[in-house]
Amino acid sequence: MADVVLLAGGVGGAKLAHGLQAHLDDRLVVIVNTGDDLERHGMLVMPDHDTVMYTLAGLANREWGWGVEGETFAASEMLARYGEPTWFRLGDQDLATHIVRMARLRAGVGLAAACVELQVALGVPATILPMSDDPVRTQVRTDDGWLDFQDYFVARHQEPDVHEVRFAGAAEATPAPGVVEAIDEAPLIVLAPSNPLVSIAPILAVGAISDALRRARARGVRIVAVSGIVGGKALKGPADRMLASLGHESSALGVARLYAELATDFVLDMVDADLSPAIEALGLRVRVTDTVMTDDAGRARLAGEILVDVTP
Amino acid sequence: MADVVLLAGGVGGAKLAHGLQAHLDDRLVVIVNTGDDLERHGMLVMPDHDTVMYTLAGLANREWGWGVEGETFAASEMLARYGEPTWFRLGDQDLATHIVRMARLRAGVGLAAACVELQVALGVPATILPMSDDPVRTQVRTDDGWLDFQDYFVARHQEPDVHEVRFAGAAEATPAPGVVEAIDEAPLIVLAPSNPLVSIAPILAVGAISDALRRARARGVRIVAVSGIVGGKALKGPADRMLASLGHESSALGVARLYAELATDFVLDMVDADLSPAIEALGLRVRVTDTVMTDDAGRARLAGEILVDVTP
Repeated sequence: MADVVLLAGGVGGAKLAHGLQAHLDDRLVVIVNTGDDLERHGMLVMPDHDTVMYTLAGLANREWGWGVEGETFAASEMLARYGEPTWFRLGDQDLATHIVRMARLRAGVGLAAACVELQVALGVPATILPMSDDPVRTQVRTDDGWLDFQDYFVARHQEPDVHEVRFAGAAEATPAPGVVEAIDEAPLIVLAPSNPLVSIAPILAVGAISDALRRARARGVRIVAVSGIVGGKALKGPADRMLASLGHESSALGVARLYAELATDFVLDMVDADLSPAIEALGLRVRVTDTVMTDDAGRARLAGEILVDVTP
Repeated sequence: MADVVLLAGGVGGAKLAHGLQAHLDDRLVVIVNTGDDLERHGMLVMPDHDTVMYTLAGLANREWGWGVEGETFAASEMLARYGEPTWFRLGDQDLATHIVRMARLRAGVGLAAACVELQVALGVPATILPMSDDPVRTQVRTDDGWLDFQDYFVARHQEPDVHEVRFAGAAEATPAPGVVEAIDEAPLIVLAPSNPLVSIAPILAVGAISDALRRARARGVRIVAVSGIVGGKALKGPADRMLASLGHESSALGVARLYAELATDFVLDMVDADLSPAIEALGLRVRVTDTVMTDDAGRARLAGEILVDVTP
């Protein structure tokens, strides 16, 4: 049984997952966003899942925040010679992940089962479940029209203003096997400091997951959201600009407002301590701490503060 | 229109193809064995086609005789971590070839068309056509029963004696688009110094290809076979032992006997000059020369001797 379920996107979610895993080992289930997934060279690529997996396996490249430490790009250069578009650059080790997973999927294995098989092979103690085995694709509306998420995020360097976000396929998607069960059983649920609009929102857009979270809250389970906006800025990625262009406040308060109905607790950084009263006024219990996870100790420390009231 | 059609397997065929291409540029069509092809990690791998392609693109690793110069194996090591069997080791650059080709095949492109697309991207002047778009798989019977070719060739290091050879699927296979047309038009057809039993024989096992070759011979087209056995030994691979265990003579004469009904001409090495009378007695016109292609000049020189009577 999971002691904690973490809802997570990529880099920020991976760091907190790593900190939680240091305390919980195999008693952590990460439900990961698949809205950023894409097809490259005939294979499914899962940036958020793989960032979390590599991080929990101790393989992640800490400088880049994505990919595998010591990664090389020989295959990518050859793919470019073949005229393949390589703006979404895949490393050689990373390619092996996509190759094996695609082979499993083509053999009829479900997405979550295929992912767990990879995690086990890499010795990851926690379980990382894609939110759904069904395809859900985040798209953003810009002045150039609707763009697939990675087209906006990688190919266009997050430069266009985002006027609207949608999660194609979410309405029809069912949670991956194990997702609802984990939420139903966990005494603590954590929303990672990932982008609330394009990392956490796609997970919540799967109706049966939102339903399970609401049931958990009604049971009195603590649901702790961690702000990924510190001092008004996103630690990584375009969350701050995206909050602003979508009519929210680019601050921990803006994030808290988005989670006010779902969460019970809110963790914000010391630099934002003055926002505490406004966030408490939303009905959230607030914890102020250092949320910037600069190293393994920082990850474990933040995780420990989140766990302080629940772990035996 | 092709001036020359070359039937070829892997390394030896690739070398002669390279020599012919030096004379003929885009007026060479190589019809390549696909009986050695196999599935790895959910992708089609074509050892003979790719050896010829990399050689004609100037990318081949000359020391190994297979793969790409400067090849790395980062993905392969990761595949092994995932528990994938990696006895058939695929390099990082080579993987890109399989990934792109598989994506094309899954998109509904025919095998030959997908292969030609890769060749064009790598700047190969000649055209390399897989013998068939349909799967044909060479299998060998050993004391351990029937083995897939690469299981025998790579995994078991060609150690078991071969008692029988079969080409599964050949009876139903049709020639790839362009194969019969090339044979019907070419004024010269060459059988490369590849293994006659498992590199050339699978091509001939496709009935419509044999039919086209017989028509060519009946028209008076020269069909030149080059011995891959020199001084009783295969320059590479198990052809010598395979000839012996299958009841043939492991010599240029043994090879000549296999080709006597199809070929008009036979090229053998100087060290085997004493076999000339016996080979001529089979009805073959014999040319004795240095057939060991140790460098680019040697490849072009042997090709030049084969072309001497035909090119304008």
